[in-house]
Amino acid sequence: MTSATRSVDVAIIGAGTAGLYALREVRKRGCSAVLIDHGPLGTTCARVGCMPSKAALHVAHLWNAARTATHCGFPAPAAGSEPDLTAAWAEVRRKRDFFADRTAERTRQFAGDDLIMGSARFIAPHAVKVARDDGEKVIVEAKAFVLAVGSRPFLPPNLMSINATRLLTTDSLFEIDTPPRRIGVVGLGAIGIEMGLALSRLGVDVVGVEQAPTLAGISDPEVRAKALARFQREFPIRLETAATFEERAADILIRFPDRSQAVVDALLVATGRRSNLDRVDLPAAGVTLNPRGFPERFDPETLQAGGAPIFIAGDANGLLPLMHEAAVEGGAAGRNAALVAKGETPLPRKVLPPLAIVFSDPDVVRVGARFADLDPEAIVIGTGKGEENGRSRVLDETETLVRVYAEKGSGKLLGAELVAAQGEHLGHFLAQAIARGETVRDLLALPYYHPTVEELLQSALLDAASKVK
Amino acid sequence: MTSATRSVDVAIIGAGTAGLYALREVRKRGCSAVLIDHGPLGTTCARVGCMPSKAALHVAHLWNAARTATHCGFPAPAAGSEPDLTAAWAEVRRKRDFFADRTAERTRQFAGDDLIMGSARFIAPHAVKVARDDGEKVIVEAKAFVLAVGSRPFLPPNLMSINATRLLTTDSLFEIDTPPRRIGVVGLGAIGIEMGLALSRLGVDVVGVEQAPTLAGISDPEVRAKALARFQREFPIRLETAATFEERAADILIRFPDRSQAVVDALLVATGRRSNLDRVDLPAAGVTLNPRGFPERFDPETLQAGGAPIFIAGDANGLLPLMHEAAVEGGAAGRNAALVAKGETPLPRKVLPPLAIVFSDPDVVRVGARFADLDPEAIVIGTGKGEENGRSRVLDETETLVRVYAEKGSGKLLGAELVAAQGEHLGHFLAQAIARGETVRDLLALPYYHPTVEELLQSALLDAASKVK
Repeated sequence: MTSATRSVDVAIIGAGTAGLYALREVRKRGCSAVLIDHGPLGTTCARVGCMPSKAALHVAHLWNAARTATHCGFPAPAAGSEPDLTAAWAEVRRKRDFFADRTAERTRQFAGDDLIMGSARFIAPHAVKVARDDGEKVIVEAKAFVLAVGSRPFLPPNLMSINATRLLTTDSLFEIDTPPRRIGVVGLGAIGIEMGLALSRLGVDVVGVEQAPTLAGISDPEVRAKALARFQREFPIRLETAATFEERAADILIRFPDRSQAVVDALLVATGRRSNLDRVDLPAAGVTLNPRGFPERFDPETLQAGGAPIFIAGDANGLLPLMHEAAVEGGAAGRNAALVAKGETPLPRKVLPPLAIVFSDPDVVRVGARFADLDPEAIVIGTGKGEENGRSRVLDETETLVRVYAEKGSGKLLGAELVAAQGEHLGHFLAQAIARGETVRDLLALPYYHPTVEELLQSALLDAASKVK
Repeated sequence: MTSATRSVDVAIIGAGTAGLYALREVRKRGCSAVLIDHGPLGTTCARVGCMPSKAALHVAHLWNAARTATHCGFPAPAAGSEPDLTAAWAEVRRKRDFFADRTAERTRQFAGDDLIMGSARFIAPHAVKVARDDGEKVIVEAKAFVLAVGSRPFLPPNLMSINATRLLTTDSLFEIDTPPRRIGVVGLGAIGIEMGLALSRLGVDVVGVEQAPTLAGISDPEVRAKALARFQREFPIRLETAATFEERAADILIRFPDRSQAVVDALLVATGRRSNLDRVDLPAAGVTLNPRGFPERFDPETLQAGGAPIFIAGDANGLLPLMHEAAVEGGAAGRNAALVAKGETPLPRKVLPPLAIVFSDPDVVRVGARFADLDPEAIVIGTGKGEENGRSRVLDETETLVRVYAEKGSGKLLGAELVAAQGEHLGHFLAQAIARGETVRDLLALPYYHPTVEELLQSALLDAASKVK
């Protein structure tokens, strides 16, 4: 069987966020391109990530507010009437479909004739073979490649024995009609905490299990303790547990080392994601892989793999699996692929101030340097507490804590970790300040409107400023 | 009758936000002080301003969310059951009482023996007479004075004929048990819009009347149009109308020039506030007043009145009646009063970047230079639209608009006006950027997490950056 051949300057594999930003940069430099994707189109973010999770959190927030409103004079539901989880989930999926469909449509419009639907694998350093969805094969030859192949949920070995029908991931969670009535959330990083809270607020019995000694990526022990106490009020959370999972006829039994147990109908597995790089046969392109399946040589500045004309962006490179980072990395990878296609030298990418947000309401935020990475002797810590913040009291969210880290002596703001209502916005405010090398004292010359959660920052900055010298 | 005399370095009249910040600064400089207040203690902000309005908006938000939740599977109220506005208002007042009582208690603790409860009037350039609440009189002699006497609601002449029992202001609104079923809100600045929306969302029939051609302090015509359309969906708003108000036996008839009418039970008058300076007899201190009742000479930098050792801070000086400005002004006035008491020269106050927030959800925000104060030839405008912002779609708040103004050529960010969900936080983010003289292009090198409303700013900044040169 012969294959058609198509030759371009740059081939981009993966039409997610990173791939689309790469395509834009390649075109901007006047290079020809193809964008290859096995479908379904619509980006991880729109289909299974940021957007459906935020839709679920929003509906859960509305339910939560409806429950609270009865204490403020809004009439209670009719006696005997039950919340309709199926209707809630239909609303989540309706929003998800809107975002996914729109993203897919925009991808098609933007890529136009440059889009090939199919799966690509390297067959030579400058060629991939694409098994097209229509059954045809096509060889794509390119001077440079962007691998934006994304990632897939990782299933830990201790869950391998559970029947797949009882294992949900974010890939499947938004496809089902109704979430199970009882669910174990395994892994309490951003996704596990967000979905654990959303499901719990929608009336699902949730048990959270995390084998690491922290949750939501928090490294500051005081913020962790506050977040743990806050979220434990909504569903039981077990940290550092060597839990075992046993499938039974009608359910799953979770056993904890202290002999306590939980029974659930299914597990939501949120134990991280694995790069899809293993699916493109990088060795066929002459790139040597390490035992973890990543290129032995990878330059995080240029995103170049093994000295080859291959650039890896987004979730696939295992750096920071965040949508805004994927966009920046995709743009840089596309630009560098175009430069290499023109015989020029790749450039380092723009580095953003680190910002990680868990939309848990109260949100968990890390920005700048992590507490765990700082020398306790070299910093001062400023604290802002929800109990002392008027807006947090209005919102009935006082079980919150902001901790900012500043350099001893100079007072330069280095980072912060926090759990706070509307904390996502405090993260953006602090990222700007950290990027600009602001001191805590200088930041106090800005307006902190009253009553806002930004006053939590003001309190923390005042506290830090008093300790700097 | 003889009066006791008390001599101090600095006498502060008014124990609101400005007065308390003044006291702190006076003490910090080792000066003796008295703080005089006629009560009730508790600050305008805590008693009748920022806090009760935010409590009302929060309860209204919960009701609104409860209504929306029924579309997402949360059970509807029992048939025939009615929302209980009295219970809602009780919750608002419960929160208000907490804030007011706590503020009053903290004031007493902080001021200690330096607090005199009573009304003060100048009787000489260096002396005020205080009519104490217990009936005693005391003369307070001081080397310098801080006047932080606050303001009171202003009643426009065309409402003078209406019986006072039918006229509510924010002074009385949070004292009543149940808001009227039908209310006309007269004046649609920050307070009128906030309370109009809160009451409307709590089921009150609201009609908003504003004689100025704008609302919520917006100067940008496109933002105004968007905000007007958005808020008109919640209650009828009449701008630029020469409305007349006629009290009848059981109600008030509002007539509009186009012959349309509205019938309400009461009016909430939110037509601005008037300084209480007229109550301290400044001429007796040798300060000459202008026809508006303000000192003929007043230095907004040092807050000094008429060259006298008198400093005016907070609402009383008619500059920016905002709590965070009152705090900064109070501190500056206290510091300058202490300096003058010690024979030193007063200093200019710290000037904050202008930031005005209406917590209308979607919020209305002005930050930096107002659109109306900019030369259209000298700026470019960048736009961010709610329809194109994923988070706004999740929140069902797409009828929103962000407009940023940047200097042509340099791209320096000058200001912004916006109506946006969670806009209060965008205001803080932009205030930091404007204070630091950031350009729109440099701001694009910051992280904009997905999906957030901060991406509205990113869109607006991108748009502006594309037009700068």
